Amino acid sequence: MLLVLRRSLTRSHELVAIARANPPRALVGSLLFLRGFSSSPSARQFRPSFAPRHRNRDRDRDRDLAYDPDPDDDTMAPEDAKTSKGPVLKTPKGTRDWSGADMILREHLFKTISDVFKRHGGTPLDTPVFEMKEILAGKYGEDSRLIYDLDDQGGELCSLRYDLTVPFARWLAMNSITQIKRYQIAKVYRRDQPAIARGRFREFHQCDFDIAGVYDPMIPDSETLCVITEVFEALKLDVTIKLNHRKILDGMFAVAGVPADKTRAISSAVDKLDKMAWADVKKEMVEEKGLAEEVADQIGEYVQNKGTIAETMEYLKANEKLVANEDIKAGLEDMGLLATYLEALGVASSQISFDLSLARGLDYYTSLIYEVITKPTPPALDADGKPVRRSKKEKEDPANQVGSIAAGGRYDNLVGMYGKKQIPCVGISFGVDRIFTILKARAEKEMRTREVDVYVMAFGGKEFDGMLPERMSIARQLWNAGIRAEFSHKVKPKLPAQFKAALEVPLAVIMGADESAAGQVRLKVLNQGKEESSESNNGELVNKTDLVEAIRKLLI
Amino acid sequence: MLLVLRRSLTRSHELVAIARANPPRALVGSLLFLRGFSSSPSARQFRPSFAPRHRNRDRDRDRDLAYDPDPDDDTMAPEDAKTSKGPVLKTPKGTRDWSGADMILREHLFKTISDVFKRHGGTPLDTPVFEMKEILAGKYGEDSRLIYDLDDQGGELCSLRYDLTVPFARWLAMNSITQIKRYQIAKVYRRDQPAIARGRFREFHQCDFDIAGVYDPMIPDSETLCVITEVFEALKLDVTIKLNHRKILDGMFAVAGVPADKTRAISSAVDKLDKMAWADVKKEMVEEKGLAEEVADQIGEYVQNKGTIAETMEYLKANEKLVANEDIKAGLEDMGLLATYLEALGVASSQISFDLSLARGLDYYTSLIYEVITKPTPPALDADGKPVRRSKKEKEDPANQVGSIAAGGRYDNLVGMYGKKQIPCVGISFGVDRIFTILKARAEKEMRTREVDVYVMAFGGKEFDGMLPERMSIARQLWNAGIRAEFSHKVKPKLPAQFKAALEVPLAVIMGADESAAGQVRLKVLNQGKEESSESNNGELVNKTDLVEAIRKLLI
Repeated sequence: MLLVLRRSLTRSHELVAIARANPPRALVGSLLFLRGFSSSPSARQFRPSFAPRHRNRDRDRDRDLAYDPDPDDDTMAPEDAKTSKGPVLKTPKGTRDWSGADMILREHLFKTISDVFKRHGGTPLDTPVFEMKEILAGKYGEDSRLIYDLDDQGGELCSLRYDLTVPFARWLAMNSITQIKRYQIAKVYRRDQPAIARGRFREFHQCDFDIAGVYDPMIPDSETLCVITEVFEALKLDVTIKLNHRKILDGMFAVAGVPADKTRAISSAVDKLDKMAWADVKKEMVEEKGLAEEVADQIGEYVQNKGTIAETMEYLKANEKLVANEDIKAGLEDMGLLATYLEALGVASSQISFDLSLARGLDYYTSLIYEVITKPTPPALDADGKPVRRSKKEKEDPANQVGSIAAGGRYDNLVGMYGKKQIPCVGISFGVDRIFTILKARAEKEMRTREVDVYVMAFGGKEFDGMLPERMSIARQLWNAGIRAEFSHKVKPKLPAQFKAALEVPLAVIMGADESAAGQVRLKVLNQGKEESSESNNGELVNKTDLVEAIRKLLI
Repeated sequence: MLLVLRRSLTRSHELVAIARANPPRALVGSLLFLRGFSSSPSARQFRPSFAPRHRNRDRDRDRDLAYDPDPDDDTMAPEDAKTSKGPVLKTPKGTRDWSGADMILREHLFKTISDVFKRHGGTPLDTPVFEMKEILAGKYGEDSRLIYDLDDQGGELCSLRYDLTVPFARWLAMNSITQIKRYQIAKVYRRDQPAIARGRFREFHQCDFDIAGVYDPMIPDSETLCVITEVFEALKLDVTIKLNHRKILDGMFAVAGVPADKTRAISSAVDKLDKMAWADVKKEMVEEKGLAEEVADQIGEYVQNKGTIAETMEYLKANEKLVANEDIKAGLEDMGLLATYLEALGVASSQISFDLSLARGLDYYTSLIYEVITKPTPPALDADGKPVRRSKKEKEDPANQVGSIAAGGRYDNLVGMYGKKQIPCVGISFGVDRIFTILKARAEKEMRTREVDVYVMAFGGKEFDGMLPERMSIARQLWNAGIRAEFSHKVKPKLPAQFKAALEVPLAVIMGADESAAGQVRLKVLNQGKEESSESNNGELVNKTDLVEAIRKLLI
């Protein structure tokens, strides 16, 4: 308990320190995330933001978070909902229902990620959706105003969780756990201005994997990076992991001549290099933060270096001034170990960019930091080898527009330095809502709204009795074999209605009285664009006893 | 929208009607569940209740739901939490964390159930954890006081969901959906007096499968019963499905001479027959509800009949007075269809008990109703064929103490009769927290806290360098093959420490420098109770290239 309390106080101090050191615009971004991602305001919740977000303007308009009228409230609600009488038939502002194809894709995404976590010995954690209010208090700086409180109904004061890191820290301390690989995929709540079309919700997902415990240097860190590559390989997304090391960054600033009290402010400016030109970042350093111009130029020279771990290490080692710095020395030692371990773990050096401009927004991390970005699709080349102009579809591919889709790093002092026990941690948080948007855009064509393998149907002439018990019996045979099957819930369904119900279903079992009496049914591949119910294509005759096997072969 | 509003109003009326017709004690039970389960107060949330619950006493003590001091607050909190300074390090009252073996078992349970739902074409639905307050308003009678409201922070007024049925109805109406098989497994929230030791929580799970839409009679109903049997077969739990039909029940009451305005009150009394002796139920009918004694006796004669569907139908058909009643005629027609369909679906008649005393607490259902109970373990027999006295463990098996573990029925008028569209529904709700308790008691011995297949270790003499890159490389080989593997995060781990870390892990890959240089490792089955690290049992030598295959064979 003391652990979390002290941490809370110290965190506040840190945040106040950042607040003092940063101009307001930078402040908003850097305060928003305990965990990090990008410090850019638009990127904070891993919501796909296709346009720069005018956060302060949003804030002003939303000052009292009043409900109506709100021109930007594109929360799910059918057009006629607001004109009807009675309660508005909608989900609360900034929330959505998940069903059909979206839900199936979301489940696929979560399962793919958690399978990787499990392969690495990760154990799932589930915490209550609300925590004691005092557990959350003082953890999020001015953004505490975005916390959802429960009404005071005469009991404890509670708040909906704001992220998964504070509940994890509370759980570690409460149970005196000193070593764990834990993961958690869950919804978190921020009473922020929603923008559904841009994917910004008040109820959204976080997906965290963290290794807590005292181990030898860079081993858990390299395994975490291995987890990242396995996740994106499993999702078939081509990504680059940008790496940097806080000690190297701080060492460079010191060598360049940045006064110690300006380190975090300059770090925060450098972090904007992926969104702003160097000239503008330099201007901010010199004019807003009072850095000498030659110091800024020196930083500019350093931070433009990136490459494989070996290449960037070589650059640093070749510079006598840099390599003499104790922090940089320590950082280089870590990075050397990391390169060895990543090779042993089969993480290709082409997946990594050791990028000296990566800073992350917060004071939070103590050594290795990282951020995952999608590799922009390389433009197609024409016959002459010239790049073809990108199509509208390509331009609109969220993979080319979304910023970072995962981020993390090592935070040895966050839990440990305020508690009785040292609990150094390293972790990664996946921006699953952003990743969902990318996968959805790619999968649009093939997405099914439900997952049924076989539709069991029957047809016949004038004497047709619907063969309901026979259809039921076949369905149970398939269910028992683990095959997903449906049949019409009508006694005498018409054949076209059955084919219509089988839209999106890949296979049909078609029963006729004569064939069934002979122990046979027809097995037909559906939805191939031809006239389904035509006599000419009635599928193949299969013995009922061989049906499960025949279906399994076709489903592979 | 109108649908939900009207439904809300009408539901209130129904509840008021029940309130008038019932004495206070019965009222509490019957108001608590929209969905039903058992009307017994102790059974309402499917929390395992091992002792009768003195609900009213709880209520009085908890009138203002004040937090401290509360002698019954056995919410998760370490002993020293309350004596330390600062915020109490605990989860909010009536909530818990899920981790380790509990979480693994819970995931197994949810996956087993949802796999069955999916086989039947069920599609998942996920709704926000909070709804517009007005959507929930008026749905739960006096238990609306148990709803968690969000604080009014200047926006919409919202409340945490109380069950999954109202969000489902809201979603159906909002999206004008007329046909769906949907399932939802999610947490719901009730600001009730918790009793953690008895498994009663404020945050707990519901697990619902419902078929909405207009179909031919008893077809969706029989598929729902098939889903129930498949779920419990998959969970290896021996259960009985108790069935009855509201029309038959009401018809019996009418034939016996129950005045129409007392039907629901008498139904509610009959529902207690599984907890109370007939004499007490009769007393309640006669003394509290003013029924003539001969009418009560007639009911008593009718409702004691149970058996297979065929047997109970035969009893009803043999009684001229009963079979002449129009409601009973209609019910018998349904039950006849059901028997045919269940046979076609392979649901054994031994799994079903057509029990004329099953009434369910609420006015909600319109025809078929059902409740699933565990079959008590038959006592073991000694050599002479006499029953052996039950062991303490057997007596404490929750399966012998928990009441119903799933319940449901058809509710054609709940959504439909108040909306523009008729949406008849039939559904089942699984008491997953109760089922979890039963499975946990049974699995206690073999439960693992994490699921790792292989621990990759290394050992050597004085020159031992720890072989970390080699261990990493083997681990990555296993991860790529989908095998769950861990290795020590120390550069030079000691062998006993590695064996200790491998507790609960079934297999070890053991690397030595010489063998590794020859392309080989040792594969060893762990945790068989012998001295693990003894020289005599070092496992079998396997070529690295054959390792994945060898491990797969052992894991099966």
